[in-house]
Amino acid sequence: MATVYQHSTLAALMAGLLGGTITVGELKEHGDTGIGTLHGVDGEVIILNGEVYQAESSGKVNHITDMSTLVPFATVHQAHGPESKAITLKDVTLSNVDVINEYNLYNNFSGIGLHGEFSHIKVRIAPKASEPFPSLLEITKQQPVFERENVSGTLVGYYSPELYHGVVAAGWHVHFISDDRQFAGHVLEFQAPELTGSLVAFSDYQLHLPIENTAFREHHLDMNGLREGVTAAEGNTND
Amino acid sequence: MATVYQHSTLAALMAGLLGGTITVGELKEHGDTGIGTLHGVDGEVIILNGEVYQAESSGKVNHITDMSTLVPFATVHQAHGPESKAITLKDVTLSNVDVINEYNLYNNFSGIGLHGEFSHIKVRIAPKASEPFPSLLEITKQQPVFERENVSGTLVGYYSPELYHGVVAAGWHVHFISDDRQFAGHVLEFQAPELTGSLVAFSDYQLHLPIENTAFREHHLDMNGLREGVTAAEGNTND
Repeated sequence: MATVYQHSTLAALMAGLLGGTITVGELKEHGDTGIGTLHGVDGEVIILNGEVYQAESSGKVNHITDMSTLVPFATVHQAHGPESKAITLKDVTLSNVDVINEYNLYNNFSGIGLHGEFSHIKVRIAPKASEPFPSLLEITKQQPVFERENVSGTLVGYYSPELYHGVVAAGWHVHFISDDRQFAGHVLEFQAPELTGSLVAFSDYQLHLPIENTAFREHHLDMNGLREGVTAAEGNTND
Repeated sequence: MATVYQHSTLAALMAGLLGGTITVGELKEHGDTGIGTLHGVDGEVIILNGEVYQAESSGKVNHITDMSTLVPFATVHQAHGPESKAITLKDVTLSNVDVINEYNLYNNFSGIGLHGEFSHIKVRIAPKASEPFPSLLEITKQQPVFERENVSGTLVGYYSPELYHGVVAAGWHVHFISDDRQFAGHVLEFQAPELTGSLVAFSDYQLHLPIENTAFREHHLDMNGLREGVTAAEGNTND
C-alpha cells in the first residue's frame, strides 16, 4: 500500500484561495518527495529527499528551511517505499512518458522521480499574487518561462486520472530541479536521452482539506467551466 | 483530524466493476460506521458500532459476521472520535437536513449518524447482479422499494461536495436500519419528529483503490455522461 497525500484542491485555487493553509513542516510528515507552491502561489516548489526548494518567478531558486513556511497546495509521497519500482526511460520527452500505458495505471494516481541529463528543458514559474487574491486562472495567463540546454537534474511529478480533474489537474504534473539547485520550475517540455529513477502506483489517495480555514469553508465553487479552467491554468502548454 | 475512508469509486461501478475487491474485515480496520454494498451490488450494507448488516432485495436483513465477505464499494469512518459533534434535528426529512448550510460544510466530506423514531421511511434495495456484470446504471433502473411507518432506527450517511461527483455521488447518500434489525436499505424519503446523533466534518478523504485487481486496472472510463449517469444511478429519487 502506497499513499499519495494532497493538500487542498485545484478547484480551491481556481476560486482564488491562494493563501497558505499548511506548513512545510506538516507537509513533510506525509512525504519526502513532492511538488507544490508557496503562499500566494509564489513560485514552484519541489521536494526532494526531504529538502524543499522554491523557484520564484525571477528564476531564482531558494532552499526553504523555515518549516513554518505556508503552502496553499501541494502533493507529496514517501519515495522509497517497497512499492517504488525502478525504471529507466530512453529518448524521453514530456509527451512520450508512457509508463501509464505500459503498466496499466489509467485508473489510479502514480508518482515519478527521474534523474538524468536533459538536452533541453523548458519550465514556467507562477508569479506571486498579492491580496485580494485573483483566481489561479488569472495568474497563469502570464508566467515567466525559462529554458536550459544540457543540464543534469531531477523530475518529480504525479499522474492523476481524468476522473479527478478539478480536484487536481488530470494527466501529468511535473516539476524539475537541476543538480546544482540553480534552475527549477513547472515542466512544459523536455528532452532527455536517458532518465533513471522510480515509479510508484498509489493504492491510496489521501486528500487533506483546510477545513479550519474560514475562506475555504465559506467559498462556493462555480462548477460551470471549472474543469476547463483547471486545464487552462495547469495544462502543460503555456498558450 | 477526522478521516473518511472510501473503497473504490462510483465511476468503477458505473463501468460494471461490481465484483468485491475488499473484505469486510479489511474495511472495518478503517471504521466502525459506514455504508456500502456486497459482491455484485448485492443489497445495501450499513455498519453500526462495528456490526455489519446487509438488506437484500427481498427486504430480508442479514447480519454479516464472515469477515471475508467481499465488498465492491463502501465508505466508513470512526464515529466516536473527538471531532464528532452531538446534534439534534427536529421535524426532519431527507430534503431538509440542513447541517451542511448551518455549519458551512459545502467543501468537505461530512458524516452523520442519527437515531430516533421515524413516522415514515422509504428505502430501496439494489438487486444482486450476476456475471458478466452490467453497469450500475442498468441495475438501479429496477430496484425494490420498501416503506415503514412508526419505526425506530438509525441513519448512517455521508455528504460529498459536487466537486467529487463521479468519484462518489455528490450530496447525501444515506442508509437506514431499524432498531430490531429487520428493516434496512438506501434511504429515499423519511419523516421524523426528532433525531439525535452526531455529525463529523472530515478534514481527510482517504480513497483506497483496488489497484491489484486486473479489471480495475484495465477498465477505461467513458467520461462522457459519467456524472449524469451517477446521478441517475445513485440520486435520491427512484424515477
